Amino acid sequence: MSPHITILPDNCILEAPAGFALGDLLVQSGIPINLYCGRRGLCGKCIVEIHSGDLPPIEERERILIESKNLSPDRFRLACRFIIHGDHVISLPSFSFIPKTHLLARGTGKAIPLDLSVKKIAVHTFPPALHSPHSLLDGLKKGLGLSELRLAPETIFTVAEVLSGISSGDVVTAILDGDEELRSLERSDTTTRFFGLAVDLGTTTLAVDIVDLGSGNVVDTAVGTNGQSSFGADVVTRIKTAYRDPAQAAALRRAVLASINSLISGLLRRTGIRPVEIYETVIAGNTAMSHFFLGLPVDGLAVAPFAGVFSMAPLIPAGRLGLDVNPLGRVYLAPNLQSFVGGDITSGLIATDLASRRGNVLFLDLGTNGELVLKTERGMTATSTAAGPAFEGMSISCGLSAQPGAIDKAFLTPDRSLAVETIGRESARGVCGTGLVDLIAAFIHRGDINVQGKIQNPEKRLLVTSQIFLTQQDVREIQLAMAAIKAGMHMLLAAEWMSVQDLDEVLVAGAFGAFLNVGNAASIGLLPRLPPGRVRFVGNTSLEGARALLLSRTERRLAERLSGEVRHLPLAQDEAFQQIFIEALDFREWPADSGRRSSP
Amino acid sequence: MSPHITILPDNCILEAPAGFALGDLLVQSGIPINLYCGRRGLCGKCIVEIHSGDLPPIEERERILIESKNLSPDRFRLACRFIIHGDHVISLPSFSFIPKTHLLARGTGKAIPLDLSVKKIAVHTFPPALHSPHSLLDGLKKGLGLSELRLAPETIFTVAEVLSGISSGDVVTAILDGDEELRSLERSDTTTRFFGLAVDLGTTTLAVDIVDLGSGNVVDTAVGTNGQSSFGADVVTRIKTAYRDPAQAAALRRAVLASINSLISGLLRRTGIRPVEIYETVIAGNTAMSHFFLGLPVDGLAVAPFAGVFSMAPLIPAGRLGLDVNPLGRVYLAPNLQSFVGGDITSGLIATDLASRRGNVLFLDLGTNGELVLKTERGMTATSTAAGPAFEGMSISCGLSAQPGAIDKAFLTPDRSLAVETIGRESARGVCGTGLVDLIAAFIHRGDINVQGKIQNPEKRLLVTSQIFLTQQDVREIQLAMAAIKAGMHMLLAAEWMSVQDLDEVLVAGAFGAFLNVGNAASIGLLPRLPPGRVRFVGNTSLEGARALLLSRTERRLAERLSGEVRHLPLAQDEAFQQIFIEALDFREWPADSGRRSSP
Repeated sequence: MSPHITILPDNCILEAPAGFALGDLLVQSGIPINLYCGRRGLCGKCIVEIHSGDLPPIEERERILIESKNLSPDRFRLACRFIIHGDHVISLPSFSFIPKTHLLARGTGKAIPLDLSVKKIAVHTFPPALHSPHSLLDGLKKGLGLSELRLAPETIFTVAEVLSGISSGDVVTAILDGDEELRSLERSDTTTRFFGLAVDLGTTTLAVDIVDLGSGNVVDTAVGTNGQSSFGADVVTRIKTAYRDPAQAAALRRAVLASINSLISGLLRRTGIRPVEIYETVIAGNTAMSHFFLGLPVDGLAVAPFAGVFSMAPLIPAGRLGLDVNPLGRVYLAPNLQSFVGGDITSGLIATDLASRRGNVLFLDLGTNGELVLKTERGMTATSTAAGPAFEGMSISCGLSAQPGAIDKAFLTPDRSLAVETIGRESARGVCGTGLVDLIAAFIHRGDINVQGKIQNPEKRLLVTSQIFLTQQDVREIQLAMAAIKAGMHMLLAAEWMSVQDLDEVLVAGAFGAFLNVGNAASIGLLPRLPPGRVRFVGNTSLEGARALLLSRTERRLAERLSGEVRHLPLAQDEAFQQIFIEALDFREWPADSGRRSSP
Repeated sequence: MSPHITILPDNCILEAPAGFALGDLLVQSGIPINLYCGRRGLCGKCIVEIHSGDLPPIEERERILIESKNLSPDRFRLACRFIIHGDHVISLPSFSFIPKTHLLARGTGKAIPLDLSVKKIAVHTFPPALHSPHSLLDGLKKGLGLSELRLAPETIFTVAEVLSGISSGDVVTAILDGDEELRSLERSDTTTRFFGLAVDLGTTTLAVDIVDLGSGNVVDTAVGTNGQSSFGADVVTRIKTAYRDPAQAAALRRAVLASINSLISGLLRRTGIRPVEIYETVIAGNTAMSHFFLGLPVDGLAVAPFAGVFSMAPLIPAGRLGLDVNPLGRVYLAPNLQSFVGGDITSGLIATDLASRRGNVLFLDLGTNGELVLKTERGMTATSTAAGPAFEGMSISCGLSAQPGAIDKAFLTPDRSLAVETIGRESARGVCGTGLVDLIAAFIHRGDINVQGKIQNPEKRLLVTSQIFLTQQDVREIQLAMAAIKAGMHMLLAAEWMSVQDLDEVLVAGAFGAFLNVGNAASIGLLPRLPPGRVRFVGNTSLEGARALLLSRTERRLAERLSGEVRHLPLAQDEAFQQIFIEALDFREWPADSGRRSSP
């Protein structure tokens, strides 16, 4: 009869052939025990308590690991080194489970089990001896219990310095890519200082999370403006600036790099984390931003068919890119969907788990570009429309990004006068995206603008407060932004022969945050009117997804699969799109059967 | 019945199931047809002529490749794209066989079929289109017929420049590592310009072959002095100079790099080859030289147990090392035997094919270090002795390297007077290694020196010509060098319980070239006296082996296997060695049963 393993407190009983490793048995039975170091008995993260049954013999390193956690070698063992030879009753301390982190993508929160592509493991190296003349690297390899240890070319210099400087018996910390590639090596045990960055590289706004790679928790977040904005508010202007002008392209690259480094430096100052303690960075940006960031030519993006150099970039050492983090750390770019729709959207699909959602789901990311992905049972189709930065508060006379003092809500009081609220209840200094939607809805309702967007008063100016107003030009900018999104949505639905009523869910990511008034958005026609609960605001999914890609190889593999699988619907030179775009300029609700070859 | 393929002119008949590719059938039948591009129909190197049987349909690219060789699409096809569906009579043009190159290691010449780790393939990329929005890289991947194309981080920048600068329909040349990693990309078809370097990185002397990677032939060779010599003649002095002194270590690195680059620059000037046309470099050097060349600390080599940082270095981009070749080209270091015996010796084992030789074979490389490898049916054992540079003509009053004007032969005339010959018949300017052995043998025979090496005349000086002489100190240097080699050889034989009579072959590589007088070497005791033909001079096997490692992945795999398998016999702190070394100082023939716990 096979030995039985009883797991407390649930008294769940597992059976395994004698000679089987307990760690493998637990994993195969779906118990998420943490085999961080790859079953090599090096990390001490899979400790189990043995309540009855014979204690297996203990290895020297195992004893040190158990005692370093103030546990007794009389009751505890590493599950990965525990070979089953009889019946046992065991329990798992809470720290022996794989940590999970919860993404925040609002209303769709997803739990990600940590499955890092980079690991930190503290080991003793095996010193060479006259009769065992292995190299210092081979001594490290033995210490890591590996038969194979690859090195990136740039790594050998750092590793050689460290290995040449230590004495026999010293502890070193290996930073490993996957299980077999040495990324770097550090003196002493540095495993508790282990951080990564998730970066949302927006055309207008940048956001950076600094994440503890031990727990998956966000330590701090910084948000700032993309320094490229001074070269032009929208991507197209910047691409044209850089087109066949390497000096300008380099200036654009420096601008975005400086912005990221400045956010990083603020984060490090606030958290006391040092640059060398950041070992992995994930960047989610649109195609152009990714190219600018890497310093690659954007010439292909300037002219039809608007092809980028890559859809999946190789992992690049951070030092090569000038990022102020550990130079041997790697930078992973969220893959683009083919070469057209950016990694920020792939990242959004990851954060919202779009691939696993039921029914027909439209994902809409409102940034400076409007990016749309429609998921049906036949797969996903993506498209991209040039919305412009109006909803981010740019290109509007009194526009403001979502910041204290920005009007983010507006409504008509019973006496039809206009009331506004500001972020942080500060005195109004301008209007942000959600405020603009509310204002347009109110002005139309009151007849100050007609459905064609024409301001009805002779001054051609709509007062919001004594200082803040919308001009006819502002209204036109909003119409253009709205029409781009609307027409894109319409084309996607039409391509799938669907109407808005077929949509089970609309997920809105990006500029509006959670504060958009869905009723007003529907009444001006920005979004279709759907039964309550079907429209959900999911926040900055680009940043959330970047964090998932930082923490999980499983999510990376999914993103890379989506990169090749998501179909692309080109709009730029489609005549139907031009026609629908013009019709979509009106502030008018979507007809209930929109899509299916009708106009919105 | 399966289709039959008859191959002219031998009328050899092969049988294959219908649907099988002709290229695969030929390879599986042991016919070395050249499937260079990995069966993708891209390189046109596997063309066959069809004498009878139905011509299979031709692909567009196939037609272009065949016509570019002035062959007719009515008679020729690519074997790799040829799916067998009936009986055929074919023949193979000579250019469709895998080229072989012959290594020169004297007396052991080995034929190496080209099996390059780097390939050049000219292709059209697939331009992206609005409805096929793949990235430029994906267009290249399609052009290469690959489902997977990896990029080294440093490569993407160059590749992006090239891809962004070409027009649709242009040809590019991909430089591939293995079959799936893109190393670089070039405009237009550059496949005919494809070179590599094999470098023997000696302590005293450097030699560089520039090799045509298309044919495997050596285009030119350059030999020069290692600029590190001014830091000390032997390795130990240089290691001590660099020990814990990064500035000196850097100076030593610069010295050796400048010497290599100067040889490369001379080769390029003479051959008209440009630096960017050199895509792969193999370096074979001893452990210390390899560390100096890479710029790694040699501190571990300075003190017992004399451990190097690595035994196998990663492939490093040449640009990172400052080598004046294509910066994206890779540098492969011949692996060390464990961390003790250098890649120059591994390279020698490859050049002489030691692993496949029959019987008991002693490989002896006489450089500034004497390195010895004994191959028996129980495997290989290596050891290393500090011979010093005497046999390279250094540290001898009138010493000279093997160059025109150096005395390389000496003998006694019937009247017992001394006669000498010089290299190039020029007037004598000094004595090189082979000359020293002859001179010592002659002086002993005439009684000018006794077997203990003592000069018998009161002047303590032995005149060779009116200007050239040996001092007592010179004789002592030669004794020390000889004793190191002799004692090493003895220890190796003793470790295997063998006597010199058990040796089937002694292969002598290094300084002496083919010109050593074996009789004289035996009479002074430098080499054992063996039946004629058992001692063979194999020349510079470090350089030959480097060339094999440049041209063949099979040879690299063998070298890497040997690196882990060859046992090491440490001598430095062995008391028996000290004792035998002292006895070996005498100029005395080996007893016939030397080894087997007797003294030499």
